[in-house]
Amino acid sequence: MMSTYSQRLNQRIQQTRTPALAGIDPRFDWLPEEFRQRASAHPGGTRVCMARAFLEFSFELLHLVAPLVPAVKPQAAFFEQLGLPGLAALHAVMSTARKLGLIVIADSKRGDIGSTAEAYADGWLAGSDPDAAAWPADALTINPWLGTDSIQPFVDIAAKRGAGLYVLVRTSNPGAAQFQDRISDGVPLYQTVAGVVSQLNESTRSADDPWGSVGAVVGATWPAQLASLREQMPGVPFLVPGYGAQGGTSADTAGAFTSNGLGAIVNSSRGINFAWRRKPFSEQFGEQHWRESVVAAVHEMIADLAANTPAANLQSP
Amino acid sequence: MMSTYSQRLNQRIQQTRTPALAGIDPRFDWLPEEFRQRASAHPGGTRVCMARAFLEFSFELLHLVAPLVPAVKPQAAFFEQLGLPGLAALHAVMSTARKLGLIVIADSKRGDIGSTAEAYADGWLAGSDPDAAAWPADALTINPWLGTDSIQPFVDIAAKRGAGLYVLVRTSNPGAAQFQDRISDGVPLYQTVAGVVSQLNESTRSADDPWGSVGAVVGATWPAQLASLREQMPGVPFLVPGYGAQGGTSADTAGAFTSNGLGAIVNSSRGINFAWRRKPFSEQFGEQHWRESVVAAVHEMIADLAANTPAANLQSP
Repeated sequence: MMSTYSQRLNQRIQQTRTPALAGIDPRFDWLPEEFRQRASAHPGGTRVCMARAFLEFSFELLHLVAPLVPAVKPQAAFFEQLGLPGLAALHAVMSTARKLGLIVIADSKRGDIGSTAEAYADGWLAGSDPDAAAWPADALTINPWLGTDSIQPFVDIAAKRGAGLYVLVRTSNPGAAQFQDRISDGVPLYQTVAGVVSQLNESTRSADDPWGSVGAVVGATWPAQLASLREQMPGVPFLVPGYGAQGGTSADTAGAFTSNGLGAIVNSSRGINFAWRRKPFSEQFGEQHWRESVVAAVHEMIADLAANTPAANLQSP
Repeated sequence: MMSTYSQRLNQRIQQTRTPALAGIDPRFDWLPEEFRQRASAHPGGTRVCMARAFLEFSFELLHLVAPLVPAVKPQAAFFEQLGLPGLAALHAVMSTARKLGLIVIADSKRGDIGSTAEAYADGWLAGSDPDAAAWPADALTINPWLGTDSIQPFVDIAAKRGAGLYVLVRTSNPGAAQFQDRISDGVPLYQTVAGVVSQLNESTRSADDPWGSVGAVVGATWPAQLASLREQMPGVPFLVPGYGAQGGTSADTAGAFTSNGLGAIVNSSRGINFAWRRKPFSEQFGEQHWRESVVAAVHEMIADLAANTPAANLQSP
């Protein structure tokens, strides 16, 4: 029987007892020297070499985080930047993550109209069966700017395949407010988008799946908006970026959760991928022990979320 | 010396004496039988077969339209839907189009924040040198929802490489108004976005390049908004979708042009790619003469734009 996205995600959250989401954000210049070196020794063009380094680094990263976190979020842009070899690496990373039991959220921020939106949805939303789409994602981030009719094709395919969506409601960047907070009829636009997301999600819920398939991206860097959105959208799954390197704290994310610790996943990308580049790990481990740094950073994040959010109340399934 | 995007585009528009833009939108089920058949005879998985059909069809399409139009707009979604073989086809289509002298606008609608936006920009904006990026696009469509700070990295790289951008200001879909027309302080949001686009474009203009690098997508399906936006954004290059199959007429696009016929390109995708599926070409030619249908449809579009827009005033360079 087909499982829904929220069923699979919540099971993994309860198994790992944490809502920590690990971004997979390879940036060539930041990779440990061993990968940059091995890559340059690899035959082929520059982009092939770099993609090879992305692949090797990301594979190790996946194996390090798989026992600890419920899900990973590969950032499509870094792979796409390298063209075909980069996207071959992305595909391998996504497939490998699924085989390791991780939930895979493709951070591709796609969006288009009508049958074009359908093509993106068909291509990315594999859902419960990794072979159901070209890109084996459990869930996908999407952009709402073009309106509900541009989101609906994603919702239809997500529901059919047991896949999930995270709509960009209130993003974590400094300039997010510029358009997203524009007040019309007394309501900021992100709340109008949130209303649409709530309604679309409602249509995907069932007794077996009270959380539904349509979630929201809400930045940890805006705790007031985060809390108001949780109130406005009870029962909508949140993906919370902006924790760590972007300045959001665990306490800032607390409002995203329900009291049992479900309802949100909190992402860290740079803070985990490149943990050895920051204190205390740069001093404690350094680059040659980047693996230990990654594991320590994940443990630190898990403890931090447990100490300052309802994630402490997560129960084994 | 590096040429700018608008310099290259306007030169091509004046050479071909038309602002007609041909979308490259392969949809497997709509392809002529000969491609669907040849594809299924090709060894490999289903997606490999379909990508092969996309490639063969798109190559023929490019050769048919290259003598007639200034530019093509491959729709990334249809290629991405097929995974790696699809994207290999997209890359080959883009490279081949450039070799044929066509301006290539990648319709990828990308958008993200900070260094992630930079990665998309670096990956897609080849500009004047096709080898400068993994994807050899002259220009890229981008989504403004995350704010100016998410657009700026695209602008910086576009200016550096002689590439162009088209920001989604007012899209052609029926639901476009839902968020884009929200009134705040008496101004609909698309006009606020248009103001940002104008300003960003201003920073890229010069005496040699009065049109600049930052353009706007404005749908032909909303003629009133199109006219008001042209007035608000003098000197900003427009990409106008929605002509033909989506219901926009040539007269609806007239307001997008300056009196000399520059300032806008008008896209037709289905109407050209699958011309033999619609009247009068379905009766006149039929599927086995799909090539003649494509050529006739392009000629019809060029004549239609010349009859009802300032494109009639285009002069050879």
